[in-house]
Amino acid sequence: MQTTEFFVLLDILLALFFAKLMEEAMLRLKQAPVLGDILAGIIVGPTVLGLITSSENIVPIAWLGIVILIFMAGFEADIKEFRRYGSKAALVGLGGVITCFGMGYLIGLMWGFPQHTSLFLGAILTPTSVGVTVSTLSELGIIHKETGYVILGAAVFDDIYGVIVLTIIYSLISEEGLTLSNYGPLIVGGSILALIVVVMPRFTHHIERLIVHIRISEAPLILLLLLGMGGATLSAYFGLTPIPGAFLMGLALSGIHSPEALRTDFEVLERVITPLFFVLAGILLNPWVATPSEAEMTLILAIIGAGLAGKVLGCGSAARALGIQARNALGIGIAMMPRAGVDIVIAVVGLSLGIINQTIYLSALSLIYVSSLLTPLLAKALLKHT
Amino acid sequence: MQTTEFFVLLDILLALFFAKLMEEAMLRLKQAPVLGDILAGIIVGPTVLGLITSSENIVPIAWLGIVILIFMAGFEADIKEFRRYGSKAALVGLGGVITCFGMGYLIGLMWGFPQHTSLFLGAILTPTSVGVTVSTLSELGIIHKETGYVILGAAVFDDIYGVIVLTIIYSLISEEGLTLSNYGPLIVGGSILALIVVVMPRFTHHIERLIVHIRISEAPLILLLLLGMGGATLSAYFGLTPIPGAFLMGLALSGIHSPEALRTDFEVLERVITPLFFVLAGILLNPWVATPSEAEMTLILAIIGAGLAGKVLGCGSAARALGIQARNALGIGIAMMPRAGVDIVIAVVGLSLGIINQTIYLSALSLIYVSSLLTPLLAKALLKHT
Repeated sequence: MQTTEFFVLLDILLALFFAKLMEEAMLRLKQAPVLGDILAGIIVGPTVLGLITSSENIVPIAWLGIVILIFMAGFEADIKEFRRYGSKAALVGLGGVITCFGMGYLIGLMWGFPQHTSLFLGAILTPTSVGVTVSTLSELGIIHKETGYVILGAAVFDDIYGVIVLTIIYSLISEEGLTLSNYGPLIVGGSILALIVVVMPRFTHHIERLIVHIRISEAPLILLLLLGMGGATLSAYFGLTPIPGAFLMGLALSGIHSPEALRTDFEVLERVITPLFFVLAGILLNPWVATPSEAEMTLILAIIGAGLAGKVLGCGSAARALGIQARNALGIGIAMMPRAGVDIVIAVVGLSLGIINQTIYLSALSLIYVSSLLTPLLAKALLKHT
Repeated sequence: MQTTEFFVLLDILLALFFAKLMEEAMLRLKQAPVLGDILAGIIVGPTVLGLITSSENIVPIAWLGIVILIFMAGFEADIKEFRRYGSKAALVGLGGVITCFGMGYLIGLMWGFPQHTSLFLGAILTPTSVGVTVSTLSELGIIHKETGYVILGAAVFDDIYGVIVLTIIYSLISEEGLTLSNYGPLIVGGSILALIVVVMPRFTHHIERLIVHIRISEAPLILLLLLGMGGATLSAYFGLTPIPGAFLMGLALSGIHSPEALRTDFEVLERVITPLFFVLAGILLNPWVATPSEAEMTLILAIIGAGLAGKVLGCGSAARALGIQARNALGIGIAMMPRAGVDIVIAVVGLSLGIINQTIYLSALSLIYVSSLLTPLLAKALLKHT
C-alpha cells in the first residue's frame, strides 16, 4: 500500500537529490548552482526522465523557497549601498531594462502573439541575475574596480526594475486584457507596497525589541520569515505576484540589526527549500507537447538573441553615454547578460496562467544557460586588460 | 486575480503564524511548544476558525518536517547511550508499551470496532514523547538521579517500541484485513530496514569523506537530509510508514562526526518546517462531522484514561518488579504519561486511511493535552521528596 506520504516524500526526495547532484556538477564546471537546479527539474520532469509528472507536491515548498530568496535579496540590499553605487549604476541598469523590454515586446508582436503575451515576453527579458553576475565578477577579481561597482550596482537596480515591470505588467493583464479598470488593483497594491517601505522601517526598533522578548527558538528568523511571507501574501492578494511584496518587505526591514547567525539560518533555508523553486521551473518545461516548427525555432533564437543583445546594447550605450570608455562600456553590457532569478518567476507565472506557451518558456530557460556560458568567456576576454 | 501561489502562501503563512503564536503561549505556560502547534492547527482548521479547510498546501511540508524530526531523534539517540541507560529502562518502557497497547486494543474491541481499528487504537496509545518528558525532568532538576535516568532511557526505548508496533500493525492491516499474505511486505520492509542499521554504519567513513569532497554549501546537512529522506521513502515504499525508515537511518548514521553547526542547521529546519506537521494534525481534527453521542463521550474518556493508567500501571509495575521502591516506581510511571510525537503520526495516518474515526482521533489529541497538564503536577508532588 503506497499512500499519499510515499509520493509526497518521493517527489521531494527526487527534486532535492537531483538538484544537489546537478548543483555539484555546475560548481565543478564553475557555473552558478541555480543552473543545476533548473537542469535537475528538466531531468526529473517530463522533458527527460518523467519521474515527476505532477508538480503539486513541489509547488508549496517551491513558492516558500522563492519568497525566502527574494525577501533576503531585499533584506541584504542595503539602501546605503544603493547610494554608494550611485546614479551611474541606476542609469546603466535602466538602459538594459528598457532595451530588453522593448525588444522582447516587439518580438512578441512580430510573431503575432497577443498584446499581453508580448508584454510578458518583454518582462521576462528584463531582469539580470545578481548572483550569477557577482560570482562572475568575483572570479575575475574585478569587484573593487569602478567597472565592477557599476555592474554590481546596475544588477541590484535591475532587481528593482524587474519587480516594477513585473508588477505593472502582471497587474495590467490580470483580467486577460488591457482595460483601464485593471489599474485599480495595481494602484491599491502599489500603494500598500509603498506603504510597507515607508512605514516598516519606523517599526525597526519595535521588531528588534519584540525579538528579544519572544521566547520561541530562532525568534529572529521566525519573525522575519513571517513578515517576509506576510509581504508576499499581501502582494499576491492584491493581484500582483508575491515577488514585490517579499522584496520590498526585505528592503524595508534591512535596517534591522542582524547577527551573523541569522544569515546562516536563512542560508540553511535557501539551500534546502529555495532550490525546489528552480527545480519546479525545470519540471514545468515540456517540449513534447508540440513539435516546434521552423518558425518557432527562429522565435527561440530571436528571444535568446534579444536577451543577450538587449543588455549589451542597452547597458553598454548607457555606460558610454555616461562617459565610460568604449571597451569598459562593452564589458559592462556583457556582464549584465546573465539571467536566473526574477526572470524565472515571471516565466513560471506566465506559463501557469497560460499567457506564454512552451516555446517562449523554453526560450526563457535557454537564455539562462546561453548567457551563463557566454558571459564569463566574453567578460574575461574584454575586461582582463582594463 | 488570486492565483495558486496566493492560496499556497496564505495557507503556509497562517499555519506558521498561528503555530509560533501558540508555541509562544505554551512556553509562557511552561508547556511544550508542540502542544501549541497542534492547538494552532485546531484553531485555523475546521474546528474553530475554518481558515484552512483544505490541507493540500500543508501536507508536503508537513511530511518533510516529521521526517526531519524523526530522523534527528534517531541520529541523536546514540547507541552508546542505550547501553548506559541499561536494561532497567528497556523493561520499564516495555511494561508501559504492553499495558497501553493491550488496554487500547481491548477498548477498541469492547466498543465494537473492527480488528484493525482496535489494533491501531492500541498502537496510538503506545509511544511516549521524549521531548515533553525530558523538559518535565529538566524543570524538576532530577535528570541526574537514577529515577531520572530510568525515565529518560525508557522514553528513548519507547520511541523504538512505538516504531516497531506501528510498523507491524500498519503492515498487517495494510490490505484492510489480517491475512498471512500481508506478512510479505512486512518481512521484506523489515529486512531492508534492518539492513540499513547493519550496513550504513560501515559507510560512516565514506560519508564523512564524501562530505569533505562535496562542493555544494551546507554539504553535511544536505547529505544527511537526503539519506534520512531516502530511508523514509524506502520504508514508505514497502508499505510501512516513513517513520521507521527515517528513525533507523538516523540511528545507523549516529556514529558520524557531527559538528555543532550541523545541529544548529537541523534545528532551523525543525523550527520552520516540523511545526507544520503538528499543525496539520490539528487541522485534520473535525469534531463537527458528527455530534458525539453519549457512548462516544464515554469512549473518549476511556481512551484518555487508558493512555494515562497504562503508562502508570505498566511502567510502574515494571519498575517495582525491578526493585525500585514504590514511590519512585509510581513517579516513573507518571513521568512516562506525556504524548505528542510518534503517537500523532500514527493517529494522522490512521485518520487519513479511514481506519480510525474522528472520535478516536479527538481522544488521541485530548490525551496529549491532558497528559501534559497532569504529568508535571503529579511528578512534582511525588518526586520532590525522593
